[in-house]
Amino acid sequence: MIHKDRLQQHLNQMHALSTIEGIPGINRVAFTEQDWQGRAYLIDCLKELKLTIQYDNFGNVVGRYKGLNPSAPAIMIGSHTDSVPQGGHYDGLAGIVAAIEVVRALQTSNKRLESPIDIALFMCEESSRFGSATLGSQAMRGQLSKQRLIQLSDKTGLSLYEVLQQRGMDPEKVPHGSYHTPLKAFLELHIEQGLVLETTKHQLGIVTGIAAPTRYKVHIHGTAGHSGATPMTHRHDGLCAAADIILATERIAKAYEPTPVVATIGVIEATPGVMNVIPGEVTLGLDIRSISNTAKTDVAEDILAAITEISNTRQIPIDLELIANETPLMMSKTMLNAMETVANKGNYNYMTLPSGAGHDAMNWGDYTDVGMIFIPCEKGISHNPAEAINIDDLVAGTQYLLELVQYLDQQ
Amino acid sequence: MIHKDRLQQHLNQMHALSTIEGIPGINRVAFTEQDWQGRAYLIDCLKELKLTIQYDNFGNVVGRYKGLNPSAPAIMIGSHTDSVPQGGHYDGLAGIVAAIEVVRALQTSNKRLESPIDIALFMCEESSRFGSATLGSQAMRGQLSKQRLIQLSDKTGLSLYEVLQQRGMDPEKVPHGSYHTPLKAFLELHIEQGLVLETTKHQLGIVTGIAAPTRYKVHIHGTAGHSGATPMTHRHDGLCAAADIILATERIAKAYEPTPVVATIGVIEATPGVMNVIPGEVTLGLDIRSISNTAKTDVAEDILAAITEISNTRQIPIDLELIANETPLMMSKTMLNAMETVANKGNYNYMTLPSGAGHDAMNWGDYTDVGMIFIPCEKGISHNPAEAINIDDLVAGTQYLLELVQYLDQQ
Repeated sequence: MIHKDRLQQHLNQMHALSTIEGIPGINRVAFTEQDWQGRAYLIDCLKELKLTIQYDNFGNVVGRYKGLNPSAPAIMIGSHTDSVPQGGHYDGLAGIVAAIEVVRALQTSNKRLESPIDIALFMCEESSRFGSATLGSQAMRGQLSKQRLIQLSDKTGLSLYEVLQQRGMDPEKVPHGSYHTPLKAFLELHIEQGLVLETTKHQLGIVTGIAAPTRYKVHIHGTAGHSGATPMTHRHDGLCAAADIILATERIAKAYEPTPVVATIGVIEATPGVMNVIPGEVTLGLDIRSISNTAKTDVAEDILAAITEISNTRQIPIDLELIANETPLMMSKTMLNAMETVANKGNYNYMTLPSGAGHDAMNWGDYTDVGMIFIPCEKGISHNPAEAINIDDLVAGTQYLLELVQYLDQQ
Repeated sequence: MIHKDRLQQHLNQMHALSTIEGIPGINRVAFTEQDWQGRAYLIDCLKELKLTIQYDNFGNVVGRYKGLNPSAPAIMIGSHTDSVPQGGHYDGLAGIVAAIEVVRALQTSNKRLESPIDIALFMCEESSRFGSATLGSQAMRGQLSKQRLIQLSDKTGLSLYEVLQQRGMDPEKVPHGSYHTPLKAFLELHIEQGLVLETTKHQLGIVTGIAAPTRYKVHIHGTAGHSGATPMTHRHDGLCAAADIILATERIAKAYEPTPVVATIGVIEATPGVMNVIPGEVTLGLDIRSISNTAKTDVAEDILAAITEISNTRQIPIDLELIANETPLMMSKTMLNAMETVANKGNYNYMTLPSGAGHDAMNWGDYTDVGMIFIPCEKGISHNPAEAINIDDLVAGTQYLLELVQYLDQQ
């Protein structure tokens, strides 16, 4: 059985190690003193469970709870140790304390599975320090080149390569990766960082896929003019063209079926930006995401076609600049079936939903079967000191993770 | 007859006095050395015409060409002497050189009208220095209180009151006004500062009215959220509501008949303004203008109603803040009939159009019948060193002004 107090105790200990006087929230930024103290505490937790511990040259930690069958592939569970600056208490950490508690629960009931269980502590998942996300799991998978370690640097100019050296590790060994034994599954529990579970009143989310963004900068070349002296019929108003694009984006993404796609214009800059001048040059930042690459490509194509039509109708030149085009991960039917079976058997109040944000889990999709579990967070707030959960949801999520691990072990 | 070379000569002289080494364009900013030298040159021109000259305590100048009938009210013609910083060569000055040439043409053909002609040189029409426009004509009309002279100050902190003192004038006398004798008409020739005449290939514009703005700040209180984790159906996207408002504004102003109304959103600020967050708070700057107060009020009401509907439909609170509500001037039917009669008789290639921008002429609407003449300017560019005209259009406009003065004198 999952123990609420043991979960709470780990959370409390980590909270104490992750606060800086005078700065709000959790500040466990990757490779800082707070992050390193948190990591040390979590390693102690793994040692207390008497796991076999492996460290790699990126700081990642894997603690193995041996299985009965020496030739069975492991089931990996875990999440990331770091936080954004002034972040919340549960982002990443929820998945780690859940993983620790799953093994603890098995141990206290003297249960051992066929497969070993590997608890993974991933470093540096947040992009806050080096501008790039999920670096720890990429490093474990051997996806980080030496060149990238040198290129990625924090705002003080310190490269990731140097930071790793300062923490006593050998960055030269990072590109080889550190996890090469077979895996049966990778499972990650994480707070949703969205409103869906709370709004729809579900305690558990089974993640159908992890979305990845396609991003464009849209440059609209309208004609500036005097707002009083230019008749409505003589205008090439860049902002009106932008409004057409904003609404077309909303309409197309909203109407797309059956796989959900989200498309957002979060950035708008209109020049000259004064009351008495019609905007000429307008720039938009367009972000399109889905767990399905096909769905995302379809929606992107439809939006681009709409932009061409808007450009033609308004006789305003519009340029597009592709700035990101990442590949999403869709969970396998096998994994989703397993997850729903376990959820139904345990009468969990669950729903399936896509993850809009990226996670360490997505770096394991080409290596093993990946499952991801969401628990609700209050008002969808994350990356913020106000991040909050109902501890009972974490207990339920951890219990579910335990049952899922046991189920997969039997397959 | 109007002489092109005399017009050109005045323009050349003023050009030489209005340039500052190393700074592009015309720099005859109100009450600066360049403005004062330009004023001195123009006073010399009036003296050369042997006009009776009156100076007021704002720097405004009126030169009277006596009429045959001592009891006939005068016809005033003129425009402003100042420019914006890095401005163009014809804004204001075109109307002054035209006025001087009208009197010169009458003199050289030994013509004297029944009415006197008053050439007016208005100071400080541009808002560049003191943040408020048409101050000279307001001063002449007695519309500037002592309090405003003290309140209005330039970016160095110098008040208009002090600037007038530095130029040797007595600001205490400004509030009384300086023009109290009857007027038959006020006429101003000005460059269009818009694209209408050029686009429609007309040499002359008869201004039907001078628009004045109604302005709102529109505060849209959407909900920010993760662009990946928030489904399309769960959003309260502030920028989408803004897009609805931008397009409603365009649609309503475009459809309004029969008096033209222009409505522009020139300012947009969306926060937080990053790629991966749905915009929450969005602020718009809305500017509505017409020469008809009724038309402007109608359109403003329709836009406000549309905003309320958008707010209800999207369930996003929207606040409105009225920041300006000025009264436009519509030219009288008598004046427009007179102007069209003269234009038709002289076979001028003319059209009627509203003035979107404000002018000194609008301060005379409650005192006398006002007529305003536009000549085309290249690509509608003004307040810019690239401001340009075809000198033949200025010749034609001045010839028309001469004929209009003669016609009105006979009424």
